[in-house]
Amino acid sequence: MRPVAAIGIGKTAFGAFASQGIRSLAATAVEAALSDAAVAAAQVEAFYLGNFAGPSFTGQSHLAPYVAGACGLAGIPATRFEDACASSGVAFHHAWQAVASGVHDVVVVCGVEKMTNQPTARVGEILAMAGDVDVDRQTFPELFARIARAHMERYGTTREQMAAVAVKNHRYGYANPYAHLRKLITVEQALAGKMIADPLTLYDCSLVSDGAAAVVLAPEGRFRVLGIAQTSDHVALSAKADLTRLPAVERSAEKAYRMAGVTAADIQFAELHDCFTIAEIIAMEELGFCPRGEGGAYAVSEARPINRSGGLKSKGHPVGATGVAQIADVVGQMRAGLGDLGLAQNLGGTGATSVVTVLGKV
Amino acid sequence: MRPVAAIGIGKTAFGAFASQGIRSLAATAVEAALSDAAVAAAQVEAFYLGNFAGPSFTGQSHLAPYVAGACGLAGIPATRFEDACASSGVAFHHAWQAVASGVHDVVVVCGVEKMTNQPTARVGEILAMAGDVDVDRQTFPELFARIARAHMERYGTTREQMAAVAVKNHRYGYANPYAHLRKLITVEQALAGKMIADPLTLYDCSLVSDGAAAVVLAPEGRFRVLGIAQTSDHVALSAKADLTRLPAVERSAEKAYRMAGVTAADIQFAELHDCFTIAEIIAMEELGFCPRGEGGAYAVSEARPINRSGGLKSKGHPVGATGVAQIADVVGQMRAGLGDLGLAQNLGGTGATSVVTVLGKV
Repeated sequence: MRPVAAIGIGKTAFGAFASQGIRSLAATAVEAALSDAAVAAAQVEAFYLGNFAGPSFTGQSHLAPYVAGACGLAGIPATRFEDACASSGVAFHHAWQAVASGVHDVVVVCGVEKMTNQPTARVGEILAMAGDVDVDRQTFPELFARIARAHMERYGTTREQMAAVAVKNHRYGYANPYAHLRKLITVEQALAGKMIADPLTLYDCSLVSDGAAAVVLAPEGRFRVLGIAQTSDHVALSAKADLTRLPAVERSAEKAYRMAGVTAADIQFAELHDCFTIAEIIAMEELGFCPRGEGGAYAVSEARPINRSGGLKSKGHPVGATGVAQIADVVGQMRAGLGDLGLAQNLGGTGATSVVTVLGKV
Repeated sequence: MRPVAAIGIGKTAFGAFASQGIRSLAATAVEAALSDAAVAAAQVEAFYLGNFAGPSFTGQSHLAPYVAGACGLAGIPATRFEDACASSGVAFHHAWQAVASGVHDVVVVCGVEKMTNQPTARVGEILAMAGDVDVDRQTFPELFARIARAHMERYGTTREQMAAVAVKNHRYGYANPYAHLRKLITVEQALAGKMIADPLTLYDCSLVSDGAAAVVLAPEGRFRVLGIAQTSDHVALSAKADLTRLPAVERSAEKAYRMAGVTAADIQFAELHDCFTIAEIIAMEELGFCPRGEGGAYAVSEARPINRSGGLKSKGHPVGATGVAQIADVVGQMRAGLGDLGLAQNLGGTGATSVVTVLGKV
């Protein structure tokens, strides 16, 4: 396998954009990434689109050529990848594979979701499709509330520790002009938030957003994919042996570290999948950033920068855009001199899909 | 790139199966293919699932790990590919790429769709999402009726020639125990069928079916992928310069032929994407089986065997299953001694995605 570099990144702001459709969001990000890479559309050999539920949110399927055609990319292979909230992490993994294996030289991977045009109840129904609809029969806040309660009971994790994750991510997001909800909050505010699914308040939950992100990949460049792995697990939360674990994350991290020749201790900063605050806490344990059960205390310590973009919590969570946005944010932070070895962790559902990517400056 | 062989194939019958859900259909095909290949689940390194609209038809998303978990495949990368009616042709293309480039040694690719649980009007709405919903604003029979009228006007193609495609495919499907509609018809019956979208009668349209198919790929084996290509085009029919053409099919065929080192004349038999009878006629022209404009006469001549499975017309068209089912059928026909060089052609929408695969016995 040869090196793969992120030679261009592009993002829309995340937010609620009544006047922008899914195609316009995706095309904006793709065109920004191509411009950033100084690559012409004619040089692109394949288009990878991560999107969770465009057909359900917007009524449009066949989204990969639909977007490609709007970006001057008609003709090349254009493929949509769907693995719930990890859709664009998975698209990125396949795009990386194509360049690493020499199949393609220049590819574009984009993630997009348009969500805010649907009423809240319908958004909840669509998100619930990422779980096992026959077995789980719960909303995502309810599913992650079960996970949070299990972690609190087993390890003594507290609501205050979860709130600290929210406070930190809002603090970071406040400084990110692309973030959806730029608002400083306190632990007290977070704890007093509306209870969504006990023990998760509104402030433990990520946002429903519109947005897109794109990355151009090629074999040469300074900001490289050093390690990457995609793994899977059972979709039904009830099928899991231990609610406090995300085993697919642990396995994908182990593989990505091995490929990169690094350990968890080497990772300087990360963008983690904080769909709920408890998810960031458990992810840090599975990634080996701290011992199992100590994610809550580790979050409070802020021992290393996590989610400097604001994370899904403040930057926003246009589901299908998130995986590629994380990669773009890690690259952006390296470009800004905020570290030379970063990690992106993208989660699908309650852990049935995981993609972990280690990126470094060479 | 190294050789890639189809070492196992598995299919469900296609039809209306009220008691079988999408997971059970897919798992049945995957288990049949693994058994056929004498490969254990533990040997499989990645799972590729082609599915068009499972979330819309069944309310379940995140289908790749959902199916993988039911087949003993939890843990490995499990990815859903969506490119409308070419979803599983596209999944197959990516699975082939992973083995050809040496990323994986043994992979499983499956295509599945569960459609018959929805009322006909809703099925029509879901299928229409494969076109440009803002621009096209027509059902798929209406879109292909425009294509048929353009071909009739330009080249003098007749309703009788289209009916001949239906008669042939029903004759083949009558002999296929896995086919959905095993019924012999005459040209007169086809012409007298209920008019769906002038000039297309019921007999010019493929079926709404449930079903799944799976193939196991590995580097060694007698039935190999000799050439394969995926291409794209604009999604909106109105964006096309010439309604009588499927340029993405022509380009993918040229690439697949070049990779295989063959010409159209060498192809002994084919499974073509006859979502409508006119689509088979135009596909034969784009594949170079006959000169442009002569597809109608060529169909009547039956100069080489096309759609011996019965095609989408009689075998059935569980949309996301079709691409992999075509591959499995071409391999099955080679195994049965019905030729040593076959082709599968899978089309998405009105031609925005095309995958052409040349398979041969070595």
